[in-house]
This record gives sequence, structure tokens and C-alpha cells, in this order.
Amino acid sequence: MMGGLAAPSPDLLSLNTATVAKQWNLRQMIAACAHHGVRGISPWRDKLAELGVKEAARLIREHDLTVTGLCRGGMFPAADAAGRRAALEDNRRAVDDAATLGSQCLVLVVGGIVPGTKDLVGARRMVQDGIAELLEHARACNMPLAIEPLHPMYCADRACVNTIDQALDICDAVEPRAQGAAPSGAIGVAVDAYHVWWDPDLAQAIRRIGRERLLAYHICDWLVPTRDLLLDRGMMGDGVIDLPALRGMVEGQGYRGFHEVEIFSTHWWQLDPDEVMRTIKDRHQRCS
Amino acid sequence: MMGGLAAPSPDLLSLNTATVAKQWNLRQMIAACAHHGVRGISPWRDKLAELGVKEAARLIREHDLTVTGLCRGGMFPAADAAGRRAALEDNRRAVDDAATLGSQCLVLVVGGIVPGTKDLVGARRMVQDGIAELLEHARACNMPLAIEPLHPMYCADRACVNTIDQALDICDAVEPRAQGAAPSGAIGVAVDAYHVWWDPDLAQAIRRIGRERLLAYHICDWLVPTRDLLLDRGMMGDGVIDLPALRGMVEGQGYRGFHEVEIFSTHWWQLDPDEVMRTIKDRHQRCS
Repeated sequence: MMGGLAAPSPDLLSLNTATVAKQWNLRQMIAACAHHGVRGISPWRDKLAELGVKEAARLIREHDLTVTGLCRGGMFPAADAAGRRAALEDNRRAVDDAATLGSQCLVLVVGGIVPGTKDLVGARRMVQDGIAELLEHARACNMPLAIEPLHPMYCADRACVNTIDQALDICDAVEPRAQGAAPSGAIGVAVDAYHVWWDPDLAQAIRRIGRERLLAYHICDWLVPTRDLLLDRGMMGDGVIDLPALRGMVEGQGYRGFHEVEIFSTHWWQLDPDEVMRTIKDRHQRCS
Repeated sequence: MMGGLAAPSPDLLSLNTATVAKQWNLRQMIAACAHHGVRGISPWRDKLAELGVKEAARLIREHDLTVTGLCRGGMFPAADAAGRRAALEDNRRAVDDAATLGSQCLVLVVGGIVPGTKDLVGARRMVQDGIAELLEHARACNMPLAIEPLHPMYCADRACVNTIDQALDICDAVEPRAQGAAPSGAIGVAVDAYHVWWDPDLAQAIRRIGRERLLAYHICDWLVPTRDLLLDRGMMGDGVIDLPALRGMVEGQGYRGFHEVEIFSTHWWQLDPDEVMRTIKDRHQRCS
């Protein structure tokens, strides 16, 4: 028990392939999940392309794993219409791949400012327009789009959607609803502890997401000190994020989905990946 | 002209001593400001302690410089009551030093989570309580307290106040006012471009600050890529922040104060400080 909260079910653990990206290919990761009793997996597209989508889908089915997300679509802003069209086409392929995998959602890392410009407002507009356009195809494929707000330190070059509230404003804009009508779940939010833990309005923002739009929940930890902007995420329990409290918030909205472990870390990438898997399982139970 | 905005008056330029911290002591910085025609200065307390507050005040008066802020008070959270009391005493001394210098404000970097804990909520409560307690002494000394929201990447270990709105909520809490009454200006906000530029609600948040509570304006730039969380701030114009747009927002609230250049950067710390001063003057005119 942590703060009155029971330890999470081990069945809800999911491996984001970024966590062991330097040690294994996707075939090995799928086998390792089955071997370690991890029931969920969330592949990145580079790993997926290596193995091939159909073979990946076959192996994942064979091992009875749940695909908790495909990482990633997004990167909508571009300098010109041709660039934005190319991004949209790539996103449609990502939707198709996510559908082939039977993924629970396509995670969107929306992209940053167009290189050579300082136009954050324009980038945010392109993101919203791109999501609105992609949503049509995603609906047709029955593939939920999960906007992932990224930590503000990634605003310039990775994602200019940086808070849950901002992601929800986009959801509201691209999916207008009659007063009081429930969201469809076709567009929603991926909540990643690393990106949102600092938000002074976190509890309120998660209440605003609600059940239908809470499409994915990612965990890791914020280390003190953090030595690198990209590759120094921590294992659950090694940092300062109160993960049980955050889980309490998402469960409070009725979320009963997977807890996906996504750790970009030169430290963990150097270790024996089976040891990493054992640590993830242990920390998921004790520290999240 | 930048986007319809006239270039700023060179008389509004201020040097935060962090910018040339590795090259000069405070005596040299004061002389350099006078030499380069920079009319404002904002010392850090380590530099101030080296020189002595009275001698610093004398030299600054002698060169007719404006002290646009003293950096810094804050760091309120502590593990126990004795620690919080020690922090408060140190903050009172900072208020006294700021008053001796005739500073326009004392800048508050409020502090992060108590080491060894994950209690962000508690840290934020300690910050608000500490500011409320310090405000009494600050009022008696006629020294405005400027809460500086820091970028969320500093939430854990430097400042758990991370947005302008959060700073303003603290202002409202520690300075309750009758409906419609103007704020006193005893407590307000230091807006630093580096910390706030990403905020999706930036324009609205700056409108909420208003004139009385906009106590300081700091500039530099966000580099792409940013190679270090602490020491890779950019010179104005070298990054992605639309500084003229931001200045337009603060001027839109009636702000007519200084533009303080605060650049923590191993790059700029390696250069001839007179060259740094010339670059600052040029970029202030052309890129801010």
C-alpha cells in the first residue's frame, strides 16, 4: 500500500520499446515481454519498420500482448504546404500501422517550431490543423489519437503542446460536441508522468481529461540532478515524482488501462536488458 | 522596427551579473556598465558579498546606475522549522541588502522540493508561507518582492513556481485586496523570457500581471538544441524566442522599466567580457 493506494496489478505493466531501444530489436522485446510476464508493449516506428508491421502484428498476437500505443505520429509543422502534406501522409501511414497492430491508440508528438523561424503561435496553429485533418482518417480506421503534451523543455524542437489543458483545448476544437455530450474517445490525451508532473494545475487538468479522453498513461521518474535534456530519465522510484499520487489521479477518472514504462536513458541502455525488465517489474509494484 | 515595434531605448538595458560572472568581479562590472553606457545593473549576492554591500552601493551611486533587481532571495522550502526559519532570516538580510543598494526589487527564486522527499505540494505551500512572512519585512523596508517563475525543468531543485499564473495566485493569496482595488506593488512578478516563452497562456498571463505587479523583465534566448539544463542560455537573437513580441506584451501592460540581460552560458563566459557587452548592446537593439 502506498498512501492508501494498493500496488498496481502486474498485468497492467507495458513496455515502451524506447526503454531497451539500444539492447534489443522488436522481435527480442516481444519475446522478452512474454518471458517476463509483461502483458503490454508499445513500439516505436523505427523498431517496427525493421521487423515489418505484419510480422510484428503476428508475433504480438502469438504472444497475446496488448499494444498500448504506437509511438509516434505528429511532427505536423513544416515550412510549406508540401511539407505539411508529407507530414500528414506519414501520419496516415502511422494510423494504418497502428490499426494493423491493433494498437489502443496512436501517440502524437506534435512537433515544434519550424526551423529558422520563431513562430510558436504559427506552429501551434499547424498542429491543430494537422490533427483536425488526421482525425478523419483515424476515425475511419477506428484508431484513437492520443495527443502527448511534452515537457516545456521540448517546446522548441519536439512538441509545442506542453500542458494537458493545451492538449484538451485542441481536443475540444477538433471534436466539437453538443453541451453535455460525452467525448467520443477518437481524440484524447496521453499522460506521461515525466512531462506533466510539475504542472501546478495537474489534479484539475486530469479531472478535465475525464475517462473517455484518457487514452494512455506513461511512467518513469524525474532525476535530481537531471544531466541531459533527452537521455536522463529515471526509473520509477529514483526521482522526485509522486507516481502513486499521479496514478491515484488517473484512476480517479476511471482509468483502468496499462502503465507504460518509457525511459530514455543512456544509463539504463547500458545494462543487461533482462535486468532492466526485472527492475521495471519490481519498481512498478513498489514505486508507482 | 520589428513587427511594428520600435527598437528599445538603449537607456533601458540592464546587465545581470550572471552574464559575465566568470570574467569580472562586481567592481569591474560596475565600471564596465559605465564605460559601455549600460544604465542598469542587477547583481547576484555572491558578487555583492565579495565586494561588500556598502562599497557596492557607493560605486553604483557614483556611476549613476539603476539597480534593477537583487538576485536573489527565495529557497524557502526546508526539511524542518529551523531550516525554514534560517531561510527566512537569510531572506530578510537579502531585503536589507536590496534596500541598501536602492534596488527596484528583490528577485525571488523560490526553491524546489525538499531533498529526500517527493512532496511538491508541500514545497509549494512552504513557498507561499515563506513569501507571506517575508512580505512584512519587505513592506517595512519598502522593497518590492518579485517572484520569478522558473522554467518547469527547474521545478524539482530550484523553483517550484513555474508559471506566471502560479506566481500571481501567490500574489493574490499573500496580498488580499478589496474587489477592484489596485495591487500595491509590494509583491509581484519578474518575467524572464527564458522561463515563460513556451507558456500557451503567455499573453493572457501577462495581461493578468498588469502594471503594478510587473516588477522586472529579463531577456536572453532559448537555443536549439539546448545542450545543458543550466548553462546553455542564448544571446538575444540566437534562439527561437520572439523577444519583440514578448516586449510588446509587457509594454502593453504599461511596463516602461529596464530590460535585464541574464545569460548563464559556458559559451559566453569564455569570451572577452567587453565583447560580450558590445554584443548585448547590439542584440538588445536589433533582436529584443
